[in-house]
Amino acid sequence: MQRYKCIVSYDGTLFAGFQVQPDKRTVQSEMEKALRKMHKGEAIRVSASGRTDSRVHAKGQVIHFDSPYSFPAENWEKGMNALLPEDIAVISVQEATPDFHSRFDATGKEYRYLVSLSKKRDPFQRKYAYHFPYELNYQAMQDAIPFLLGTHDFTSFCSAKTEVTDKVRTIREIELLVEGGMLQFRFIGNGFLYNMVRILVGTLLEIGTGKKVPVDIVEILQKKDRSFAGKTVPGQGLYLWKVYYDEED
Amino acid sequence: MQRYKCIVSYDGTLFAGFQVQPDKRTVQSEMEKALRKMHKGEAIRVSASGRTDSRVHAKGQVIHFDSPYSFPAENWEKGMNALLPEDIAVISVQEATPDFHSRFDATGKEYRYLVSLSKKRDPFQRKYAYHFPYELNYQAMQDAIPFLLGTHDFTSFCSAKTEVTDKVRTIREIELLVEGGMLQFRFIGNGFLYNMVRILVGTLLEIGTGKKVPVDIVEILQKKDRSFAGKTVPGQGLYLWKVYYDEED
Repeated sequence: MQRYKCIVSYDGTLFAGFQVQPDKRTVQSEMEKALRKMHKGEAIRVSASGRTDSRVHAKGQVIHFDSPYSFPAENWEKGMNALLPEDIAVISVQEATPDFHSRFDATGKEYRYLVSLSKKRDPFQRKYAYHFPYELNYQAMQDAIPFLLGTHDFTSFCSAKTEVTDKVRTIREIELLVEGGMLQFRFIGNGFLYNMVRILVGTLLEIGTGKKVPVDIVEILQKKDRSFAGKTVPGQGLYLWKVYYDEED
Repeated sequence: MQRYKCIVSYDGTLFAGFQVQPDKRTVQSEMEKALRKMHKGEAIRVSASGRTDSRVHAKGQVIHFDSPYSFPAENWEKGMNALLPEDIAVISVQEATPDFHSRFDATGKEYRYLVSLSKKRDPFQRKYAYHFPYELNYQAMQDAIPFLLGTHDFTSFCSAKTEVTDKVRTIREIELLVEGGMLQFRFIGNGFLYNMVRILVGTLLEIGTGKKVPVDIVEILQKKDRSFAGKTVPGQGLYLWKVYYDEED
């Protein structure tokens, strides 16, 4: 058996998330369907660095699978792309050691969240950004970032619908970029809880509109209670951008 | 009765084109549905600068309609956008004179066509550009442009499925821009025949790959026969970008 690591990009619009669910179109089930065809009907299990929710996109999701075949990486890539639907693309395939695990070996992740600031609704952005046509105080949002960086218990920034008990995570980097009517949030950390990026963005936007002030972050973290943070912004603005492993960067 | 002129943008992905067709979702039928709601059930007819085909997008389509109401332009815009589906947006509304006609008064149109050049399939571009991952000779394509500019009989660049008899049109400007893995064609002219932009792009791409040479354009125009020009490229790369009227620019 040979283990393969793949970087995968998908437009989340028409998927009920990554993970297999009965009677739903998911990224995992489409990938497993393509791999089954390449293995003459034999079921091949795909494991990912983590799930993504319904409508959430990926530019650099990482998955792994095992195969009795040892084609060159390029042939795997071509074969899978030929069989996958057009809203999923395999960006690269490489051979991995048998102990590589896309989830347990990940040392960090980068998520981005796109907010369309244009006053007018843009039909071309509706599935790829969150439309938020309100005035924002960027300085206030920047001032809130230092309170979020580093290691904290992020219980207040996690959906109540989670089974994870250890809610301590480390955020290494948060960046705000404004360009051409689009606000882009970049988050890099060792891992993110369920809905964490979407609640972080919702809270930062409430600081941007003046509903909260930067130092409120300190109290929100201390409370360890979801109800103190801002709203969960919609899934279509979220992108799993990159998964980090020790081998690289 | 007051006549209104509107600039409209739409993502063509989920429409069977602009024009009303029985049992099909079209831009015109969605706009007329929204206007009917604003007129207490009274049918309001929408006229456009021209049709767009299935999957073709618009950044600046122009339509007009007549109404017994005389709301301020801003209220029309807000009202229509509140009632329209999220893949259509009204960009602006202005009062027009009773003799203004979105189609007959148009003095020119700009179309753009997007070609994604990336070697890998991009799931985020599949509905918004034509994927063409082949080597192109841009100089050859540029050299072909002068043969197309000006006034010609464009029968060879028109779908056989047309009822128009006068196929003489004037192309004022053709521009090729390459930026970030995307090739953008810009066409400005006094009017375009059915499928004309898509056949022009298909022919220029065949010149780019060396299947044709620039001077072939002269013969293709002379033949007045569709079979001599290149293929019709797919609709999802095409954008009706702007409609010109004498009042402006």
